Amino acid sequence: MTHQTVGHVAAVAGEGPLADCPQEALVPARGDGAGCPVDITLGVLGGRWTPLVLREFLRRGELTYSELSAALPALSDKVLSERLARLGAAGVVERHRTPGWPARVRYVLTPEGRELEPVVRGLWEWGAARRAAGPAS
Amino acid sequence: MTHQTVGHVAAVAGEGPLADCPQEALVPARGDGAGCPVDITLGVLGGRWTPLVLREFLRRGELTYSELSAALPALSDKVLSERLARLGAAGVVERHRTPGWPARVRYVLTPEGRELEPVVRGLWEWGAARRAAGPAS
Repeated sequence: MTHQTVGHVAAVAGEGPLADCPQEALVPARGDGAGCPVDITLGVLGGRWTPLVLREFLRRGELTYSELSAALPALSDKVLSERLARLGAAGVVERHRTPGWPARVRYVLTPEGRELEPVVRGLWEWGAARRAAGPAS
Repeated sequence: MTHQTVGHVAAVAGEGPLADCPQEALVPARGDGAGCPVDITLGVLGGRWTPLVLREFLRRGELTYSELSAALPALSDKVLSERLARLGAAGVVERHRTPGWPARVRYVLTPEGRELEPVVRGLWEWGAARRAAGPAS
């Protein structure tokens, strides 16, 4: 996978992004890794609060549950646990248990999770440009 | 806006993407251009079928309603009209009416819409890499 972006639209039409999305596959994420690649990524990123949780991991690389909870006071334990489980199922974060007493559990951003950084950056840049332009008329 | 991607995570932490997202802003898109830039873009892209509609515009640049409807037989008129209206409100496509009789209405991808191409590409690449790796264990 490269992080290079390509500016010409023709690349989209042929073999590039979206070319291999069957219409019936492009439905909300099913969580089983099947379907259109665009939808897989949107399914990982798109949940409410998920970008905020991901932000903490992109900033720090790894966190304990307590650190994450303190960084995101607006999220209930239920929501935070669910988001962590979903990011784990998507291969974005991993749960590491350090032996000893008491055992220490850390959540660690995976290499795949780190590769979401340019994706998030692309989403941010487009949204920031739109916001700067003001609401569409 | 540049389409350059940055590989190091430190850029995320400081002034880069997500740094200026207040937690209360990062909720599902409100359609008024306010809030976190990441969420603005996810709000535009994230709706069911929206990537498919966008794909047609990235391929062809402009379409009539009939052409779009023929290209996306899985979508009902209601869904397609709603998606077109939402992409219009987001500044991604514009409705152009050619004078004459009969008047011809075309939907045209805007420059802002064209700038979604690298964003979609980034989403596609990450999802394709995840899919190739198989379902997460």
